[in-house]
Amino acid sequence: MAQKHIVIAPGDGIGQEVTAVGKKVVEKIAAKFGHEFTYDEVLIGHLSIEAMGSPLTDDALETMRNSDAVLFGAVGHPKYDNDPTAQMRPEQGLFRMRKELGLYANLRPIKLFDELLGASSIKPEVLKGADILFFRELTGDVYFGEKGRKNNGNTAYDMAEYSRYEVERIARKAFEAARTRRKKLCSADKANVMETGRLWREVVQKMSLDYPDIEVEHQYADATAMLLIKDPRRFDVIVTANLFGDILTDEASQIAGSMGMLASASIGDGTGVYEPIHGSAHDITGKGVANPIASILSAALLLDISFGMKEESEMVIKAVDNLLKAGYRTRDIADSQTSSDKILGTEAIGKLV
Amino acid sequence: MAQKHIVIAPGDGIGQEVTAVGKKVVEKIAAKFGHEFTYDEVLIGHLSIEAMGSPLTDDALETMRNSDAVLFGAVGHPKYDNDPTAQMRPEQGLFRMRKELGLYANLRPIKLFDELLGASSIKPEVLKGADILFFRELTGDVYFGEKGRKNNGNTAYDMAEYSRYEVERIARKAFEAARTRRKKLCSADKANVMETGRLWREVVQKMSLDYPDIEVEHQYADATAMLLIKDPRRFDVIVTANLFGDILTDEASQIAGSMGMLASASIGDGTGVYEPIHGSAHDITGKGVANPIASILSAALLLDISFGMKEESEMVIKAVDNLLKAGYRTRDIADSQTSSDKILGTEAIGKLV
Ligand SMILES: CC(C)[C@H](C(=O)O)[C@@H](O)C(=O)O
Ligand SMILES: CC(C)[C@H](C(=O)O)[C@@H](O)C(=O)O
Repeated sequence: MAQKHIVIAPGDGIGQEVTAVGKKVVEKIAAKFGHEFTYDEVLIGHLSIEAMGSPLTDDALETMRNSDAVLFGAVGHPKYDNDPTAQMRPEQGLFRMRKELGLYANLRPIKLFDELLGASSIKPEVLKGADILFFRELTGDVYFGEKGRKNNGNTAYDMAEYSRYEVERIARKAFEAARTRRKKLCSADKANVMETGRLWREVVQKMSLDYPDIEVEHQYADATAMLLIKDPRRFDVIVTANLFGDILTDEASQIAGSMGMLASASIGDGTGVYEPIHGSAHDITGKGVANPIASILSAALLLDISFGMKEESEMVIKAVDNLLKAGYRTRDIADSQTSSDKILGTEAIGKLV
Repeated sequence: MAQKHIVIAPGDGIGQEVTAVGKKVVEKIAAKFGHEFTYDEVLIGHLSIEAMGSPLTDDALETMRNSDAVLFGAVGHPKYDNDPTAQMRPEQGLFRMRKELGLYANLRPIKLFDELLGASSIKPEVLKGADILFFRELTGDVYFGEKGRKNNGNTAYDMAEYSRYEVERIARKAFEAARTRRKKLCSADKANVMETGRLWREVVQKMSLDYPDIEVEHQYADATAMLLIKDPRRFDVIVTANLFGDILTDEASQIAGSMGMLASASIGDGTGVYEPIHGSAHDITGKGVANPIASILSAALLLDISFGMKEESEMVIKAVDNLLKAGYRTRDIADSQTSSDKILGTEAIGKLV
């Protein structure tokens, strides 16, 4: 029986729908185990711009900082996607949250539920047993380097930057995680092109001396993108920079059948943030078809990593598994070959409890 | 009957083996059609560093510049991969060639030969009919921006940079190509994060007004990485920046069954360069198992694009197709389910003529 304070930050689009479901699951767990969870809800992204004139207010940030964990949805809006000149953008709220909360490590577990073997574009025999844990660096790279225009706006630039310390702290987390798993670490970079890549490789090479029990391989980011599809089972833990991590984990979502299945944990100096890896998906917003499983699994990661509640976390994962075993699906993970029941996000939850 | 001068630049590793085969095919075509092709061979990459103290000499570059086309292999060596502090690197030869010859457009056609439907990790029903043409920008981005170290070598940086003009000229080529195909263009960027991405999107949006017949979509690079696997048939022409193009085309190689099948054409201000998209693959060098088809198809692109020899080019592609139809395979594209003949690179060529 524990007391915890959780901030719910649904953000935009389907973030609203799926986070509501994630929260319900957390509430059920609290009731079941006799925990006392309290909640605050804050705005972030497009809706925050509309209501507060800022993609993330100081107040919202403080509320997050003072909480025990944040369950986050997604940010974004087509309006900004189509207007590259917009000065204030939903994503700035996300970046501010990541930077100010010191969330330098983004964990993205890629694991296929056996029941979804048929839902992927990749052949089941290539996928079966694939189990990858990504460590994506989250507070460096072109995301936070200097950027702007010169030559009267006719040239744009973005600076990618990494310090030795930044590489070390994310690599350490990845090495430690590999130790509790299959003891393999792949570090993905572009050391053949980028100076940040060469620093990255140098640091990981040096650190590998402290982890003689871990088998380390260095791959170029392009080769990694290829190998993820060709032979996903060759990977255990993958550590990579912010931008490569963004691309490679979206790609790897196909290993798990759908983006709608993938949760992530962003951790670092203080409060952890838990979120689906999918975006705000305005094309399906309000239709009740969004897959809430990524948010539910994000809640499971929250319980496990921020609260140390292993049993509670496993119960959530088990519930998802049971629901899939029983043939329930959202549209994105339905196997066109079989005729399984399909259900909406909210209803799926009813089943979970 | 035409007179042409071709530079052969095999580079390193399997580059040597496959380019020799590519050249033989060009020679056969010349003999068959009564063309008079002359050849020069130059060093580039690791072997050039060893022999000349430079990854690409001024002389070699001049020889390329004065030729009608270059058939290139690959550069790289494990020595440098494992030593991120090396000052002189094989890749510098490649970058110098690309920059000095003004090769700003790298065309990478991704097309699956029907016979190889089974060789991919992706399900045949997802792949069948996929036909994508990538336009990867090749002389900008972090590849050529300022890069270095600061804080006593403890911080590394790479500058990504694009000018309006650089985006326009590659986008124009992509729009024009889409016009001769299925009239769909996808532009992949990270406009939600990068200023270069916002400039990129702005330029492509503006240009699309000149191409009302082309259906344009803007996707984030991460979403593109996901969609390439989920539904490759949705794409026709894809245009993207240098770094994203590097990653996305390596990934997309899995749509064609193997990297060993993919050719590319680098074109721009003058002499065009034709090369496999695969690397120097030192792990299989000297074993005679490298797939020469990428180099053969590069030769076909060379005949078509630089020499305007459509018939000759098609004959090469047809020969590859016949060879696959007859069940000949290299190791990388063998389908484990069926028992097809397997042959070495050099022998495969015997069949082709
Ligand atoms: C919304 C976008 C800016 C973000 C990113 O690029 O980091 C998203 O793709 C993610 O992966 O969290
Ligand atoms: C060898 C390497 C530097 C090169 C690149 O990154 O451009 C290669 O991957 C390619 O795609 O041609």
